[in-house]
Amino acid sequence: MNTIKIGLIGLGTVGGSVLQMLTENQDKVQNITGQRLSVKTIVVRDTEKHQAAVPEGVTLTSDLDAIINDPEIKIVVEVMGGVHPAKEIITQLLNAKKHVVTANKDLIASAGEELANIARENHCDLMYEASVAGGIPILRTIVNSFAADQILEVKGIVNGTTNYILTQMQRKNWSYDQALKKAQELGFAESDPTNDVAGIDAAYKMVILSQFSYGTHLKLDDMSVEGIQTISLKDVEQADAFGYTIKLLGISRRINGGVFAEVGPVLVPTDHPLATINNENNAVMVTGQAVGETLFYGPGAGGLPTANSVLSDIVSVTKNIVLETTGNAFNNYQSESGNVDANDVIYPYYLSLKMLDIPGQMLKLTQVMTQIGASFSQIVQTKNDDQSARVVIITHDMSKAQLHDLKEQLEAIDTITLLSAYKVLK
Amino acid sequence: MNTIKIGLIGLGTVGGSVLQMLTENQDKVQNITGQRLSVKTIVVRDTEKHQAAVPEGVTLTSDLDAIINDPEIKIVVEVMGGVHPAKEIITQLLNAKKHVVTANKDLIASAGEELANIARENHCDLMYEASVAGGIPILRTIVNSFAADQILEVKGIVNGTTNYILTQMQRKNWSYDQALKKAQELGFAESDPTNDVAGIDAAYKMVILSQFSYGTHLKLDDMSVEGIQTISLKDVEQADAFGYTIKLLGISRRINGGVFAEVGPVLVPTDHPLATINNENNAVMVTGQAVGETLFYGPGAGGLPTANSVLSDIVSVTKNIVLETTGNAFNNYQSESGNVDANDVIYPYYLSLKMLDIPGQMLKLTQVMTQIGASFSQIVQTKNDDQSARVVIITHDMSKAQLHDLKEQLEAIDTITLLSAYKVLK
Repeated sequence: MNTIKIGLIGLGTVGGSVLQMLTENQDKVQNITGQRLSVKTIVVRDTEKHQAAVPEGVTLTSDLDAIINDPEIKIVVEVMGGVHPAKEIITQLLNAKKHVVTANKDLIASAGEELANIARENHCDLMYEASVAGGIPILRTIVNSFAADQILEVKGIVNGTTNYILTQMQRKNWSYDQALKKAQELGFAESDPTNDVAGIDAAYKMVILSQFSYGTHLKLDDMSVEGIQTISLKDVEQADAFGYTIKLLGISRRINGGVFAEVGPVLVPTDHPLATINNENNAVMVTGQAVGETLFYGPGAGGLPTANSVLSDIVSVTKNIVLETTGNAFNNYQSESGNVDANDVIYPYYLSLKMLDIPGQMLKLTQVMTQIGASFSQIVQTKNDDQSARVVIITHDMSKAQLHDLKEQLEAIDTITLLSAYKVLK
Repeated sequence: MNTIKIGLIGLGTVGGSVLQMLTENQDKVQNITGQRLSVKTIVVRDTEKHQAAVPEGVTLTSDLDAIINDPEIKIVVEVMGGVHPAKEIITQLLNAKKHVVTANKDLIASAGEELANIARENHCDLMYEASVAGGIPILRTIVNSFAADQILEVKGIVNGTTNYILTQMQRKNWSYDQALKKAQELGFAESDPTNDVAGIDAAYKMVILSQFSYGTHLKLDDMSVEGIQTISLKDVEQADAFGYTIKLLGISRRINGGVFAEVGPVLVPTDHPLATINNENNAVMVTGQAVGETLFYGPGAGGLPTANSVLSDIVSVTKNIVLETTGNAFNNYQSESGNVDANDVIYPYYLSLKMLDIPGQMLKLTQVMTQIGASFSQIVQTKNDDQSARVVIITHDMSKAQLHDLKEQLEAIDTITLLSAYKVLK
């Protein structure tokens, strides 16, 4: 019987689930690939902590060399997370001719191209399906099923923590702080949730999705990234009254030969498929010139769903080993993209403003809107407190350049404060 | 430059779109595969009818030998449809060492295994992503991304015509006949719509999906297949009042080591993702033991979406030609499945009945239900006409065996007629 030995680095939630799935589904994998896959060595920092979880016959060690120097180990799964020392470890592994499977989005978004080059030089596979949207097989689908189509837009809910928080705010009328606290209690948010709630995690995923969709390398610094921390319950309720649900969306669009990508709160019409994605689930919508709108939905995180994506990579590498076709990039679509002009990025916007409750304020606002060439579609004014009023607006289409002008002009008026400006999906 | 020449059999809506996409996206495909793909020869029955649609340099002929005997043509796309003579033609093509891509679900559902064997013997690829759910890349996703998971259930809306009709009945309060007529006018239904409205087309697709999900070969004859022809507007309205939408679903489930598959109208809760799939769109929901619930949504038919699936196959074959790895089955998961006991197939049911409006009828019905061990969850009685009443019921969980008994016992009571019995999704 042919057996392929696997090394595992990290034994947290995902690592444990990978170990479990490889054991439980060995027969099916063998049926499909003709190979028996078995974990030989697991590397963790603290071996004592994990000893009980390791099956008989599997070596548990804190010494990476036990994998690097073992010629029997062909595939190594990295699920320790973080950019360092994961980057150095994966580099070492590839240089030792090991095929690598990782779930590490931070690393792939920031150093994916560099690592892909090292993999190619060593004729090794480097795969990372689990790095975007845990249980949704979106990367391989883009590679295999949109190869001959032009992707026009990829957008979606790619962070489970923020979607859980927004779902609770909407359903239970909780404040952001209440919902975050609950998410932390249930393990859906980390004790330091910044990476998730500030939109950084979603932005990493949009970098990877954009690369697969357009063959282009975006940098996190080039993207506008806004989180959910400033969304108030009033915004959620007002959006609902207008017929929308607020979601944290990553949007990446081809506009006039360039690629525009952004992460931020967006008002999604309640009958839009993305509005129905609740709790910790994720969904990615891919619009192709030929195929039209498609949507891929599933659990965004969790041990077993993420492990399933890791295993789909392991099976792909195994097939490549059998067919002797390793060393081809996971995604080999490469294309240059120009910059996108802020005048060409056009959406309706939801604006919420606080203004001093004295005569002439609405006139001032209207004058500013007229001056920048924008106009209102819906408008609601309510009392905020004794001194001030709250005004929420849905605008007609306006460009990002116009929005920029609007912000600047309102900045100069000390009786009006712009609290939030979110895109509105049609 | 490396060029791979392609033959095309059939130049209807899909064929024309394949030709268009191969021309328009040549550069991207070349970027990914390193190969230039070009259509060399097109075979149609009536060359005169299609002459205008054929670009310069492409041969249009009615002679299949122009493809069979041309050693330059490596990949042939069959989009003529129907089982015969498509089966004989594909057999000839494979024996002439041509790789074949087809969108022909009738053929694959009925003779897929036989053709896959001929392909293997000739070391040729045979791919058919477009045969299920047009624009949704569901087959390749199951092969690649659920390889190491146990699929527990695959269900969905896999026929666009019937979903269009049901959407119109629900939204516009049209009768089945009105909605069918409109669908025919718009080209969503054929002049003889039997194959679609009787559920046969959906059943073919469930045969293929079951094979990919469980590695098992179902026969159409072993499946219970019910269409939408007998759904009345009253059923649609009553389902809506109960909080459900009626959809034609294919359901294929692993039950106690066997595979249960069925096509028929099902009441889907209005907040269930499948209830939100409207018009001619399709959606397939795959539940994996590890990954949980995932959903894949997109256009179910149409020239370009279907052509996109055909092109994903062509690109896969091209990669295999380059890597010299052709001749591996599209799906090589094989597994035996036992039969499923009708006592183990359990759902709540929606029953609609006509009963004579004379005393004692509801008692009779209740006695039958008690006798078979089933019970009511919701019940509504309305006046049907002067002589009869209409009773609709949602039952608690009951088995297919109990449903069978119920039907038999009601058959024997001439004052009560069972009009419909549809499964209810939870």
